[in-house]
Amino acid sequence: MLRCRSVTPADDGAQACLITALEALGFTVTQLPFGPPDAPTPNFYARRGEGKPRLCFAGHTDVVPPGQGWAHDPFEAVIQDGMLFGRGIADMKGGLACSVAAVARVLAEGEPKGAISFLVTGDEEGPARYGTKPVIEWLAERGELPDFCLLGEPTNPAFLGETIKIGRRGSMNAQIIVQGVQGHVAYPHRADNPVHRLLAILGEMTGRILDEGNAWFAPSSLQVTSVDVGNTATNVIPAQASAMVNIRFNDCHTGAGLEAWLRDVTLTHAPKADVQVSISGEAFLTEPAEPVECLQSAVEAVTGHRPALDTGGGTSDARFIALHCPVAEFGLVGATMHKTDEHVSLSSLEELTEIYRTFMKRFGL
Amino acid sequence: MLRCRSVTPADDGAQACLITALEALGFTVTQLPFGPPDAPTPNFYARRGEGKPRLCFAGHTDVVPPGQGWAHDPFEAVIQDGMLFGRGIADMKGGLACSVAAVARVLAEGEPKGAISFLVTGDEEGPARYGTKPVIEWLAERGELPDFCLLGEPTNPAFLGETIKIGRRGSMNAQIIVQGVQGHVAYPHRADNPVHRLLAILGEMTGRILDEGNAWFAPSSLQVTSVDVGNTATNVIPAQASAMVNIRFNDCHTGAGLEAWLRDVTLTHAPKADVQVSISGEAFLTEPAEPVECLQSAVEAVTGHRPALDTGGGTSDARFIALHCPVAEFGLVGATMHKTDEHVSLSSLEELTEIYRTFMKRFGL
Ligand SMILES: [Zn+2]
Ligand SMILES: [Zn+2]
Repeated sequence: MLRCRSVTPADDGAQACLITALEALGFTVTQLPFGPPDAPTPNFYARRGEGKPRLCFAGHTDVVPPGQGWAHDPFEAVIQDGMLFGRGIADMKGGLACSVAAVARVLAEGEPKGAISFLVTGDEEGPARYGTKPVIEWLAERGELPDFCLLGEPTNPAFLGETIKIGRRGSMNAQIIVQGVQGHVAYPHRADNPVHRLLAILGEMTGRILDEGNAWFAPSSLQVTSVDVGNTATNVIPAQASAMVNIRFNDCHTGAGLEAWLRDVTLTHAPKADVQVSISGEAFLTEPAEPVECLQSAVEAVTGHRPALDTGGGTSDARFIALHCPVAEFGLVGATMHKTDEHVSLSSLEELTEIYRTFMKRFGL
Repeated sequence: MLRCRSVTPADDGAQACLITALEALGFTVTQLPFGPPDAPTPNFYARRGEGKPRLCFAGHTDVVPPGQGWAHDPFEAVIQDGMLFGRGIADMKGGLACSVAAVARVLAEGEPKGAISFLVTGDEEGPARYGTKPVIEWLAERGELPDFCLLGEPTNPAFLGETIKIGRRGSMNAQIIVQGVQGHVAYPHRADNPVHRLLAILGEMTGRILDEGNAWFAPSSLQVTSVDVGNTATNVIPAQASAMVNIRFNDCHTGAGLEAWLRDVTLTHAPKADVQVSISGEAFLTEPAEPVECLQSAVEAVTGHRPALDTGGGTSDARFIALHCPVAEFGLVGATMHKTDEHVSLSSLEELTEIYRTFMKRFGL
């Protein structure tokens, strides 16, 4: 699977590797290509068994481009000094492989009690539009939703056993464009300085404490990432000024609520301003309950480290799953993900397989 | 003179026209080329007579580039329908010509009591560095300063007799560059957003009422003319942000005082910021006294309009003269100055000549 050049949106046979392995283990596989008929996104859902509990392993087979400067071919799966090198080994072909291996070990011990499934997409590193989102909706329509979903993203910053993610902050971007009336600085009363209006808007936005955070989330953060006027004439009041604002928000907020506030603040100071908002993900939280505790204890049993429960970092497909069922994320060490010479240790692959196996048993399978 | 292509810093014989006319009227002319020896600025000082009162006509022979789209050649001095067209006729070859003509009329009536002089530069529309400033200093060193200086800039916005300028606001520009620490928006505590520091700086600056104005000046005005970051990555906190600020200030302030305030506000919010200030002129005021009243009554006598005393608009060479002696500005209608098809009416040239002549008589010459 690591040798397939599945640079998003390509698949290059990566999902077929998984499907072959899962069918050999008795899974029934349904391919779910969503999106434009001429270039659909490769997705599949695989299930084995009936009844409860129902556990789903989720993940993606697409990877980011390798870039230049690798010591080994990024699609050769070279092993050197106990390390396996390859684009996507950490994020997250390794996590998927470990989950399939863990299922094989569980099945070797006897028929499990409930149902095991896999939700795999090839559109996580791209627009994430025709991947996990429509697949989980498809499952919901069919009453196929699992009791718990485990997403094998590389959640550990430095060592295996460090971090389980039980939520993620939401993220939104806004572009604010303020029109004014151009004029000479000597006659400000004949002009309408859009920079001053924009300063009032951004001053009010940056001056608000969005929240204090809570037990599971850091405080929400608003960052003005750019302000641009591009006026080189020192004696001219410009006609237009624009700003870019990013908000990373916790579950005290919704994207819609923050968007309404951004618009309200903007229009108070500049009634004719243009505000373009894009919400790339809502905040979500899987309150720690039995499945999360099972996972935490499984990680501790295998690694000796009790993993912290965390909600930091960027977005993942867990945001789509969280709308339908509890989800947590735990995978390999992500130190080299999206970087040159992405790699993980062979021992971490073995440990993660054992963590997943232990978790399945404790979860009741 | 109007046919000389004296686009700053060129002279093209413009000053020689004046010098020939003044020498014919009995003036003693001293050429005063200041600046680099290989490209000095053409200036001259001309004086006729001794004793008191001492009146100086000041002005410039250089003009701004004509640009495109003229109905007539901008250096042909075309007369059509009672209008004289040409680059610089309003700003301010016309004013200079009227003052020479007025002197000729006064001399025709008999020998005046005091001294009449001309201070003419060819560097007003350019950097204004080697023009009026060193010439007035040269006069001061020789004890040659006049009792009053009349600068023939086109002070009337729409009709002759509208406005006498008795002062000008000062002007300064500041560039503020704030350095921060770049980072990912998901981890703002690891970064230092220079945009937020700059917003605090500019918010404090724009929030201050510099003054309420006074009897002769409008309130001082601070305008942020540009803010620039140029960051196109919506998930990145940038490393640097910059702003341009212009202040037009009245005589409640000095450039040095405002510069100290700008630096103080900036360094309070961004201790490592860079602030570059350039003061292009201090505010000045010639308190209305006898000479200004003579001028006002002369304008009213000729035009029927009592001109307002004003301090608005941009800078002029009066800022250099004001450091040494009282100065007022009155000239032609400036509606077309610096524009395509610059022109004045022939009748306004006659009227301005009569205004200058009447003023000289009332001033005691
Ligand atoms: Zn991933
Ligand atoms: Zn001028």
